[in-house]
Parts: sequence; structure tokens; C-alpha cells
Amino acid sequence: MKAEIITIGDEILIGQIVDTNSAWMGQQLNFLGIEVYQVTSVHDNHEHILKAFAEAEQNADLVLITGGLGPTKDDITKKCLCEYFDTELVFHPEVLEHVRSLLSSRNVTINQLNQDQALLPASCTVLHNSAGTASGMWFERNNTIFVSMPGVPFEMEAIMSEEVFPRLVKLGITQSIVHKTVLTIGLPESMLAEKIERWEDALPDFIKLAYLPSPMMVRLRLSAYGTDQSALEAEVDRQVKELLTIIPEFVFGFDDDNLGIALGRMLVESGKTLALAESCTGGNIAHFITSNAGSSAYFKGGVVAYSNEIKNRLLEVPVETLNSFGAVSQEVAEAMAIGAQKALKTDYSVATTGIAGPDGGSDEKPVGTVWIAVAGPSGVISKKYIFKHNRERNIIRTTHTALNLLRIFILNQNSALI
Amino acid sequence: MKAEIITIGDEILIGQIVDTNSAWMGQQLNFLGIEVYQVTSVHDNHEHILKAFAEAEQNADLVLITGGLGPTKDDITKKCLCEYFDTELVFHPEVLEHVRSLLSSRNVTINQLNQDQALLPASCTVLHNSAGTASGMWFERNNTIFVSMPGVPFEMEAIMSEEVFPRLVKLGITQSIVHKTVLTIGLPESMLAEKIERWEDALPDFIKLAYLPSPMMVRLRLSAYGTDQSALEAEVDRQVKELLTIIPEFVFGFDDDNLGIALGRMLVESGKTLALAESCTGGNIAHFITSNAGSSAYFKGGVVAYSNEIKNRLLEVPVETLNSFGAVSQEVAEAMAIGAQKALKTDYSVATTGIAGPDGGSDEKPVGTVWIAVAGPSGVISKKYIFKHNRERNIIRTTHTALNLLRIFILNQNSALI
Repeated sequence: MKAEIITIGDEILIGQIVDTNSAWMGQQLNFLGIEVYQVTSVHDNHEHILKAFAEAEQNADLVLITGGLGPTKDDITKKCLCEYFDTELVFHPEVLEHVRSLLSSRNVTINQLNQDQALLPASCTVLHNSAGTASGMWFERNNTIFVSMPGVPFEMEAIMSEEVFPRLVKLGITQSIVHKTVLTIGLPESMLAEKIERWEDALPDFIKLAYLPSPMMVRLRLSAYGTDQSALEAEVDRQVKELLTIIPEFVFGFDDDNLGIALGRMLVESGKTLALAESCTGGNIAHFITSNAGSSAYFKGGVVAYSNEIKNRLLEVPVETLNSFGAVSQEVAEAMAIGAQKALKTDYSVATTGIAGPDGGSDEKPVGTVWIAVAGPSGVISKKYIFKHNRERNIIRTTHTALNLLRIFILNQNSALI
Repeated sequence: MKAEIITIGDEILIGQIVDTNSAWMGQQLNFLGIEVYQVTSVHDNHEHILKAFAEAEQNADLVLITGGLGPTKDDITKKCLCEYFDTELVFHPEVLEHVRSLLSSRNVTINQLNQDQALLPASCTVLHNSAGTASGMWFERNNTIFVSMPGVPFEMEAIMSEEVFPRLVKLGITQSIVHKTVLTIGLPESMLAEKIERWEDALPDFIKLAYLPSPMMVRLRLSAYGTDQSALEAEVDRQVKELLTIIPEFVFGFDDDNLGIALGRMLVESGKTLALAESCTGGNIAHFITSNAGSSAYFKGGVVAYSNEIKNRLLEVPVETLNSFGAVSQEVAEAMAIGAQKALKTDYSVATTGIAGPDGGSDEKPVGTVWIAVAGPSGVISKKYIFKHNRERNIIRTTHTALNLLRIFILNQNSALI
């Protein structure tokens, strides 16, 4: 089955937003064994939209359309669909009821524009949007399925997951694809490739390996293609187990895991707690950890000690230490970690202090200089890094590096205890 | 002048990477007054690529192609271009010299695949790639310009900036586009549309208005099209000024501003400082603020008080208050705000406490229940919200709502002082 994605909206073409919807849909369809033939982004322009529909109908069995379904005047997708499928808008009382209850839960009074969202093409199957007021629409013609959805990512994802995928699965998909992603941290791509070369070369033909590097980690994605789903799964599992014997300390999780989830598992299993003392990361480590549900089981809290005054007052870093060594120093990082561990009464703590940029650097301590300290039951360790990136990337790298330092620290501690 | 962007590569269609190149190019072309008519992403497939070229030639005056220029076998763009323009590869010694010196500076020995990068179509103008080994190519036919560039973002950007834009400017551009984005918060899209309906209807024909909603704010983008750049700018400015008289309290900034930047301006102008006490937002407000360079001028720090113990120990929320009213209550939110203001010695503070989900909700306090408090020189205010979303969105909404509550609080305080 071939799919085409059409994204509608001036904001994409003038580069005001980056189209992340297509990547998400491409990935999901791929899991289902549906090949995305083309992605086409077009203006909020009546003629152009109709032309894109017609071309897609020729190329694809499934046309997924996002965008242009808002209640305002610049959104014309619904009008174009009516014209393309030669139908007219009819009133759907159940949609109005949904719009009304959703808005009322947000304390918004319904107005005429919202009411019009209950007007939908007569010839479509209405797809419920649990996350918003713009319904999805499902059309079929000449063996091609058209699905129109709003462009707001979480609304599109809700309609795809709850309405579109179940229908597509019912249509019967022939080829199976099995993916498994192994998350590694601590080895650059080229060194990782060298370490696992023999394993990679011995992979069977029907399993493809992709290296997906990001600023801090390298994800290894195994994709197996074939007809027998469970045989594919078994072989992928076998290969992953073998990989784990080659690089055990560099693998921190699988698929949708992140470092926070992996650390959470380690802490919960051992009944330990964590505190943070963040300067240059400015709350990003706390945010990263608390983004994961259930983090309150091991994360007690943290101090964002952006000014020296706060480092002293809340974390008891001595003023003399701050004055003698400067805020970005091994001494201050370690004092912050120990201070957080004491003040928040936790087993472990992580502290960061550095120069995120763009200002504040010097010859001795250039932008990107970061000290990270980790304190635990057995004492405190610290390490200096020079990241040399822009502010955003320095914050992200420091966040991941700090959490990985904690992970290694706990691993070593546990193995020392055995 | 109309442009089409064609991005080539399987990795885009299976969602392995998000196509950020198109957004960058769209933005840049837009600044130059060139309208992007369509973005098309296609597979590394010979027939499909040629079809996309032919369709683009019919639609556009300028076709910008990225991807498929690497030295490996799966990259076939160069071969397709030769076929499309009926030409053949010829050897360019100056390109080989460049590839050789670039690789040697990276301590890489040149191999046959690299040497082949000096083979380029005879009928094109070679565009120097200062950032990599794959040259750009410029073709002209039937009044349409084709430019092919590598898909690596910084290489594409180097060729666009150093080779393509100077040539495009020389061609003389007739139509100008002027954009201005007005950032609003506090009104849902439909209520905003109602409030500004008369203003919107009275806009001149050459100005288009787009509503760009995101979970918390609605951006209003005015786009003016015409030949006289300064006349367009003047008219857009005039319209924006008029809009400001209709919804003054809902506009917090323009173009690339964010709430953090807007608040930073307000605080720096009045020489005031800010502290945070975050429970359910878990550090995200601190992260949002410190993502902006220069935030240390007004942001002293914060406490991520995830457990009740920390609310009591670091923010001095009385244990009796926590026990009587529960952590998610007006009393605790206000005590947290006042506690942060005191502990961190700042003029203003913001506190959040709520149930982000997915667990922890009850009939009385369902998931999404949030109390936000703001403390300032004149006292403390607080407000209850019920967001009813998933964890991620509840955190984002609380972050934006809290910062907007602070913005309104400061605005009212300033106007009360006048």
C-alpha cells in the first residue's frame, strides 16, 4: 500500500513552522508496513489544494491530509474537500456536543465559529478528535482513501492513533515490519560502529541496521522485514541480546526509553532518592526527569541556583569557595551537590555549574565550560567538560552528560556492593 | 517569482529525520520576496525524482533540490540531473582539489568515492560548497532555474548563502513580501477572531491574516504582498498599531519573542527580580526562562519542590497547611510563592502546584487541577485551573499560564502605580 501525505498551510511554506507531522506519520505508517510515496506541502490556496488532491489520488492508495481545519477564515480545507468529493456540509449534533463540552471544560463560551465545526461533508465518515474541536474526515473513492486531520500535532496524533490506525489495520496489511531501537550513550558513532562491526556484518539480510546519532546518544535501530511477524520478533530479540553482550555499559534503554526513565528504574529498584542543584542547566534536568510519569517516586526536588547568592543561601556553598574559585569550578560543583543532598535529604544528587553562553565566557573559562558533580552514599565525584556549542545545545548536552554520569556512578556503586 | 522545494531521501519519508531544510529555505526565500509554491519530498527513486523535476518545472521559476548527493550508491540525484538535462558527467580538477584539501584537514584519506565527487554534469554551473565535499549545481532551462544541493543542513545553508542568494538577487526581484507576527495569549482562537473581526474584515486586499494557534497562544501573522517594500511595511505597521488598540492586554510580543523574553524585558526595565517555586511544572518554568540568554539579569533561581517535605523545608510551607488543605490547594500555592520570594529575596515569585497526571487524580481534584500563585511587592494572588490534558500538555499549559499570570500581575501593578 502506498501513501501520500499532504500538509496544508502557508506557515509551512514560509518556514514559520517546521513540519514535524510528516515525520511522525511516516514513521508510524512504516511500522504498519505502508510506504510513504511522497510528502507534499501546499499553500492555503483553493486551486492548489485541489490539484494536490487529484495528483495524490493518482499516485497513492492512502492520502493523509493535515492542516487548514481551524474555525477561522484562512482555513479552507473543508471547503476544498466538499468541492473535490462533490458533497456539501451537513450538521452533526454529536460533534457540536463534543465541541461544546470540550470548550466548557476549558471555560470557553461557544461561538458561531465553533458551532460551524459541527458542519462536516455529507459523504465522509467523521473521525472523532478527542484532543480538539476540529473533527477528522475519512473519504473513499476509486480505491483511494482520503483522511483529513487538523495540523496541530497532538490532535493529528490523537486522530491517527484512535481512529485511522485501527481502520487501516482492519483493511489487512500484508508485509510486517518489526523495529527495535537500542539506546546507547557514551560512544561516538564511529567508535560504536567499530566496536559492533563483527556483529553488524553477521546480521541476516532481512534485518537492516540504522545509526541514528543525536547530540548525546546514538540510537541503533534494527528493522526486520518479512511475512512472519513472530519469527521477525524472535530474530530481532536474539540479535539484540547478542549486542548487549558486546556493549553492556553503553546501552541504557530501548525504544521510547530516555535517560530519565532508565535512571528512575535504577533508583526505584534500589529504593533511593535524588535531588538536583542546577546552575547552568537552569531547571532543564528537573524538567527532563519530571516529564516522566512516576518520577515523584524517586525525585524529591531541586534548587535552580542561578545566582551565587542562592548557591550560598539554599545550598550552603561557602562564600569563600565562590569567591576563591569562581562559580564555575570543581569546588563549587561538589559543594552544590553535597549541599543539595543535605538540604533535600536524598541518597543521590547531581549538580551543574557552567557557562551556557552566549555571554560570560573568558579565555580561562570559555563558553561551554561546565563542571558536573554527583554525590551519593559513598561520596562525591566531579568532572569538567568543554562543550563549545551555542546556549541551547550546551544546556542539552550538560543535561544528558550529568544524568549519564549519575547512571555510571550508580552502576559502579552497585557493582562495588556485590 | 515562484519557487518549489524538492527534498530527496528515504530518511525523510520514513520519518527518520524531520525536514528542517525546507523551513529554513522557505524563510530565506520569503525574505527575498520569492514565494514558495510547494514543498515536495520524494524517495531516492529514479523515476519518481524525474517526475518531480518535470512537475516542478511546470509550476515554478526556481526549483531548489536538496539531498541525494552523497558519495554512496543510494544517492542518485546527480545521475537523475544528467538524464533530465541530457548531459554527462565531466571531471572538475578544482573540485577534486577542494575535496582533497577538505578531507586532509579532517585527517581523512581520499578514496575513489570521494574522487567521484569531482565528476559533475557538463551543462551546469558548479556551486562551491565551502562546508563539505558535495558541490552544488545550477541549471537553467525554459526560464526555470534548478539548483541541486546536499541535504546536510549546514552544507545546504552554506551553498544557499554564499552561492545561490547572490545570484538570485542579481536576477532582480519584483515582488516583495512583508511579514509581521503579533503574539497573543489569553484568548482562544475563536474568541480572538470575534474580537478582531471588524479589523480583520477591513484589512486591505494585499494583506493576508493567518491565525497560528498553539496550546497556549495564538500568533497572528500579517503578510503583505506588493512591489513597494516600504509602503508595505508602513501599512503593516499601521494595521498592527490599530490591532493593539483593540486587544492591548492580550498582546505580549512580536515575531520571535516568547513569554520569557517579554517578561524579561518588563523585569529588567523596572529593575525587579524573579524567583520560582515549582511543584507540578517540575522545573519547566525555570528551564523556559533560562533558555533565553541574559535571563540571569532578573532570574535569581527557584526551588523545584516536588515532595511536600521540600515545600516545607526550603519554602517554609507549614506542615499544618500541607496536611489541612493538601499540596494542591490555594493555601499551599500562595505559601510557596511567598516562601520563594522570601527564601530567594526577590521582588516577584511564581508558584505552581497541581496534578500533572497520569496518576494522582481524585474526584475532587482530577488530573489537570492546578493552582498558580504570584507574589509581588503588593501581595499575592492565586488562581485555580483545570486543564484536563495529558502530563506533557498539562506541564506546558501550566508553564505558559503561570508566566502570563505574572505578566498581567506586573501590568496591573504598573498601571496601579501610575
